[in-house]
Amino acid sequence: MGMVGGGKDAFIGAIHRIAANMDGLIELCCGALSIHKEIAIESGKMLFLQEDRTYLNFEEMISKESKMPADKRIDFITIVTPNFAHYAPAMMALENGFNVVIEKPMTFTLEEAKSLKKKVEETGLILCLTHTYSGYPMVKQARAMIKDGALGEVRKIIVEYSQGWLSKLSEREGNQQASWRTDPTKSGKAGAMGDIGTHAAHLAEYISGLKITKLCADLNIVVKGRALDDDGNVLLKFENNVNGVLIASQIAAGEENALKIKIYGEKGGLEWAQQEPNTLLVKWLDAPTQILRAGSNYTNILSPFATHNCRTPGGHPEGYLEAFGNIYRNFAQTLLSKIEGKTPTAEMLDFPGVDDGVRGMEFIENVVASGNSTEKWTNFNV
Amino acid sequence: MGMVGGGKDAFIGAIHRIAANMDGLIELCCGALSIHKEIAIESGKMLFLQEDRTYLNFEEMISKESKMPADKRIDFITIVTPNFAHYAPAMMALENGFNVVIEKPMTFTLEEAKSLKKKVEETGLILCLTHTYSGYPMVKQARAMIKDGALGEVRKIIVEYSQGWLSKLSEREGNQQASWRTDPTKSGKAGAMGDIGTHAAHLAEYISGLKITKLCADLNIVVKGRALDDDGNVLLKFENNVNGVLIASQIAAGEENALKIKIYGEKGGLEWAQQEPNTLLVKWLDAPTQILRAGSNYTNILSPFATHNCRTPGGHPEGYLEAFGNIYRNFAQTLLSKIEGKTPTAEMLDFPGVDDGVRGMEFIENVVASGNSTEKWTNFNV
Amino acid sequence: MGMVGGGKDAFIGAIHRIAANMDGLIELCCGALSIHKEIAIESGKMLFLQEDRTYLNFEEMISKESKMPADKRIDFITIVTPNFAHYAPAMMALENGFNVVIEKPMTFTLEEAKSLKKKVEETGLILCLTHTYSGYPMVKQARAMIKDGALGEVRKIIVEYSQGWLSKLSEREGNQQASWRTDPTKSGKAGAMGDIGTHAAHLAEYISGLKITKLCADLNIVVKGRALDDDGNVLLKFENNVNGVLIASQIAAGEENALKIKIYGEKGGLEWAQQEPNTLLVKWLDAPTQILRAGSNYTNILSPFATHNCRTPGGHPEGYLEAFGNIYRNFAQTLLSKIEGKTPTAEMLDFPGVDDGVRGMEFIENVVASGNSTEKWTNFNV
Amino acid sequence: MGMVGGGKDAFIGAIHRIAANMDGLIELCCGALSIHKEIAIESGKMLFLQEDRTYLNFEEMISKESKMPADKRIDFITIVTPNFAHYAPAMMALENGFNVVIEKPMTFTLEEAKSLKKKVEETGLILCLTHTYSGYPMVKQARAMIKDGALGEVRKIIVEYSQGWLSKLSEREGNQQASWRTDPTKSGKAGAMGDIGTHAAHLAEYISGLKITKLCADLNIVVKGRALDDDGNVLLKFENNVNGVLIASQIAAGEENALKIKIYGEKGGLEWAQQEPNTLLVKWLDAPTQILRAGSNYTNILSPFATHNCRTPGGHPEGYLEAFGNIYRNFAQTLLSKIEGKTPTAEMLDFPGVDDGVRGMEFIENVVASGNSTEKWTNFNV
Repeated sequence: MGMVGGGKDAFIGAIHRIAANMDGLIELCCGALSIHKEIAIESGKMLFLQEDRTYLNFEEMISKESKMPADKRIDFITIVTPNFAHYAPAMMALENGFNVVIEKPMTFTLEEAKSLKKKVEETGLILCLTHTYSGYPMVKQARAMIKDGALGEVRKIIVEYSQGWLSKLSEREGNQQASWRTDPTKSGKAGAMGDIGTHAAHLAEYISGLKITKLCADLNIVVKGRALDDDGNVLLKFENNVNGVLIASQIAAGEENALKIKIYGEKGGLEWAQQEPNTLLVKWLDAPTQILRAGSNYTNILSPFATHNCRTPGGHPEGYLEAFGNIYRNFAQTLLSKIEGKTPTAEMLDFPGVDDGVRGMEFIENVVASGNSTEKWTNFNV
Repeated sequence: MGMVGGGKDAFIGAIHRIAANMDGLIELCCGALSIHKEIAIESGKMLFLQEDRTYLNFEEMISKESKMPADKRIDFITIVTPNFAHYAPAMMALENGFNVVIEKPMTFTLEEAKSLKKKVEETGLILCLTHTYSGYPMVKQARAMIKDGALGEVRKIIVEYSQGWLSKLSEREGNQQASWRTDPTKSGKAGAMGDIGTHAAHLAEYISGLKITKLCADLNIVVKGRALDDDGNVLLKFENNVNGVLIASQIAAGEENALKIKIYGEKGGLEWAQQEPNTLLVKWLDAPTQILRAGSNYTNILSPFATHNCRTPGGHPEGYLEAFGNIYRNFAQTLLSKIEGKTPTAEMLDFPGVDDGVRGMEFIENVVASGNSTEKWTNFNV
Repeated sequence: MGMVGGGKDAFIGAIHRIAANMDGLIELCCGALSIHKEIAIESGKMLFLQEDRTYLNFEEMISKESKMPADKRIDFITIVTPNFAHYAPAMMALENGFNVVIEKPMTFTLEEAKSLKKKVEETGLILCLTHTYSGYPMVKQARAMIKDGALGEVRKIIVEYSQGWLSKLSEREGNQQASWRTDPTKSGKAGAMGDIGTHAAHLAEYISGLKITKLCADLNIVVKGRALDDDGNVLLKFENNVNGVLIASQIAAGEENALKIKIYGEKGGLEWAQQEPNTLLVKWLDAPTQILRAGSNYTNILSPFATHNCRTPGGHPEGYLEAFGNIYRNFAQTLLSKIEGKTPTAEMLDFPGVDDGVRGMEFIENVVASGNSTEKWTNFNV
Repeated sequence: MGMVGGGKDAFIGAIHRIAANMDGLIELCCGALSIHKEIAIESGKMLFLQEDRTYLNFEEMISKESKMPADKRIDFITIVTPNFAHYAPAMMALENGFNVVIEKPMTFTLEEAKSLKKKVEETGLILCLTHTYSGYPMVKQARAMIKDGALGEVRKIIVEYSQGWLSKLSEREGNQQASWRTDPTKSGKAGAMGDIGTHAAHLAEYISGLKITKLCADLNIVVKGRALDDDGNVLLKFENNVNGVLIASQIAAGEENALKIKIYGEKGGLEWAQQEPNTLLVKWLDAPTQILRAGSNYTNILSPFATHNCRTPGGHPEGYLEAFGNIYRNFAQTLLSKIEGKTPTAEMLDFPGVDDGVRGMEFIENVVASGNSTEKWTNFNV
């Protein structure tokens, strides 16, 4: 693995490294960790990179790495720069034969996303998108149960992602995370909807297996002086005329990272909350609610898609880093299978890819369009 | 107290009697408990009513009771019939000098509601509306904290009321509760929005102290063959441009009576859930979340409006019936003060009345209108 | 109903009145509410008692009431005085043909308890002991499940009752509740073990259906200057060599009224906590934990003993007062059946009585003896 | 890092590798992964070990590795064999200049433990003991709060560790984990008390800063046919005459890995549960309970000992593997400091070591002795 971005003090770069390290399948070999020379070099040292594989920019890295002998060359490049700087290294990596792992949202614009998709299809390389929350075992359990019809027809989906960390105008107070995320030239068309609304939308579609078809969005800038939406509420229609609501806010003061989803069907409902991720509540219409737990050894209840993504037995909580690690592990296992000429299992293949990336950019386009529209319902255009 | 409706097997009538009985301030003296003679008589016996005060219809009851000597005559009449049968007995009671307690929604139409309001103002009598959930002590605590500015300016309100009991077409299977609630000729213009959406809207306005000004409603009939909405999602704007979402559903399979509210302000957020009503979560932007508990003896934290509505010390859970009882007790204390020529305290006066009843009917009108509209935002007309 | 003790400002008297009032089956007709004349009279007025049935002491009350005509005379007497003043009125009531409801612990000494038992057996009257916590529907559900073998053989019982309200030497600061409860001349041999340990022991035996056979007690006076135990931990053996632990503390600072019980059997475990009483967790060895909820309409899961003690559907929380009310209601229904010459159902008969009272006093004797002993295990002597 | 034990299918070996990998500070370089040649070789391949560093037994590994050049040689050896096979490799490693990480309990007997301690002191090498649960940030927060006097004097400690996985005689059904853990020749004198009771005792002493001084133990073999205790309840006295209870069970059917601790002081109490490890409840005597959360950015509330052990912001749950990783990271940071001639910080030095290992073996000795004794209280002999 080589990394673009993620120098010291960058939040998400460190997360990616832990996730990639976790299962002993992936090794960080090189990086273009910062556009600031000193930070790039210092970060490289801190991470025990060889000096000659500590690059000053991604162009240099991709160019040099692509000329290395196969047994030394990295297999893939991870891109953890701000949104506006995803596309160029991703495209160059693909063009040079490297697989890619990339933070969401995949690109700055929908056009870039479509362009990446085309390139992935042309090259046959793998692009993995780290929609972290889809890596949790109980999210996969929920998806499997709905697919298997445990709830009957799905009727209603409520997804809510609330954070409080942008309750003040922190971007003016030197908060780097806040700074680029609220800047349309770095983050893109959407603020909260791009940063966390996309996660919520992805989770809803991933678990339910249903696509959003129509939206009615109310996007707000609550904190005065901010340039992008920091809050939004969206009415949704999914396929089969399933009703839904998506709430995303970064001004929900006192909330940490409160992503929650509830899905109701004819026979019962599912409830999952990211802050207690090892639990899936299964609420039945005519029977007691069940508490399904990750890693448990029930007879015939946990899906192979759930158990494949657990490392420990029930009661040994796994968390955000393990969910992240699951995406890396599945990607790595798929890649390894491919390298070894084997067929990856369905469980290995279950990680978000370039289609999810395009879908995410479409969500941003559509939700912003609906927010700006005076029409009640707007179609989700693809 | 005299009761109209609420014969044996009626759910809400029994609740009203327990609530009224609870504190030893109110005695059930007479009733027109059913329009079915046999049920009326049998129910009267079951409730130890005197035979000559067991009436066969409300007209007879009000007429005869109004001629009784003052020291024997009832002070008020409680109306627990289906929605369509609220107005006539309420109006007749007021016209004959009786105070009134009435189930929500107050009337069948907005016109009736306005007419009752006018009569209440003319007569100076008291009308109490049993918006039960506003009777919980921690709801009152939430209201007091917002009023006192603990959260700073309110920014967002999310209220959700989910039940699962109408997940099937139960009204066709002999379920009486389901039967009238889903029948437009008995329930009114709205189904779920009238039955539980009104509670949610009342709670949001009561706690926040803010009125809804605009709506964007998506009302649905999810169970095929049903005549009224059984599910709905509504985007809201409150005064001061506060954003909100109201979700009400009776097809959320597996949910019992899941009324929850979250309110966020500049400095923190509040969260309350009816199924664990003695707890109020106070989430602070820069400090740990606090768990406020009903009946606790903290120094200077619980509002007098909260403690006035507790009967037991912290850790002795009070519930739905006590919340209901609080409305009756405050109403009774206010009535008693009036009778004794005293001024009721602010805490006693804190029960829902005719204005809340009108507001509820306006909510039904407006939410149905918005649901039928192709406009994105419709004004909340009063 | 006539009441001995429970004048204004007394905590438990007010609770008894609410519980008795709740279901419209019982009316407070007379009282000897305080040994202080003024308080007795004032309390009588506050409770709308007739002046001539507001007595100044229990002797007068019992004597005069017993001479009243049958249709006016009270059916039973409720005794809510401090522990040392239970026996005399209870005995006199029984001797004069009145049934009795009495707070726990039933008496001041074991001898008194045995004497009351003898009198109850002689007279055929009913004595009801308000072990409140056994009145909760989900406690009854737990008992029923164990009786029906749902867990297989019971193996382990952990019961814990923690309060924090005696963390300071409040008895020296004018706290009346603290004052008599920590005074051996008023409370009896035991402090925390008598006040709350008895509840815990009763609950463990009631739910499990197993009697304690051996104890190893560590009783402590944690707050210096106190005269009775305010904390204790007890190892237990039950019948069938079932292991157990009982923890009772009134110096667990920050706890409200935290009574919790866990019972494990061969096939699974049960967990119930008084502060969220409508939920019973059923943990299975090889299947997901179930959340059983009071008032729910599952098919064939809730025992009739549970549903008989619910007033509202699932999701409408009932609490401490309803549990208390259930004891009164079952007692009243049993009494009524007896008066009407009918046979009460098993559900009606399910309230704590004189045997539980004797057992409670035996527990106090035995736990204090074990606490004072240097032997590891002492037999539970009866 | 070199590993002894932990071949494929071994639970705890895999955990150690993930924990060691997590932060990019440690690399697995060699192993004697199994005493079965084939498993050793296969496991080595699976873990990408070089063939010539895949050893067949620990003697060979230590011997060969100690002769490697300093820059290639491993810095420490991790021992993850069953209890009886801890001592020999640990001693040999120390004798050959390697630091050691070792699973708990540290040894098979107390004598071995003391012998290791002596050797550690002689050599100045570091021995790290993986008492995982002390690696959680909120455990460290609890310890810091008590040390800083936030609760005043500690008064009571309740620690409970319940699992259900030995509810059946699984050791006879081919369950390898069960097999050695219930075999006195492999596990040692104690079963549940050794396996999980030691964790509970360590946690209680670690958080409270108080040593156990006396015990009164009831150890049980609940499942017939088992050779070692599978359940136990212990009354405790700590320094300062603090009362305590320790409950450990592996027959608590339906429990996963339910380690919970509650500590009460004069001013309030703390509650922490391993299955929701990112939350620490702080219960105040006169103020609302606070929910402290790992990773949060409160002003002046989280101790540096807590924040040093977090990788992610609040709301991104970290779990068991991260707690494990914290022990490895602190150990590695200390080792690195030492290698680089720097002084490790107090936060780095905060990992369990040889003294904790001796203490754990003493606990096993003492709790078994007390269990066998007919005396009520036995001293905790050291």
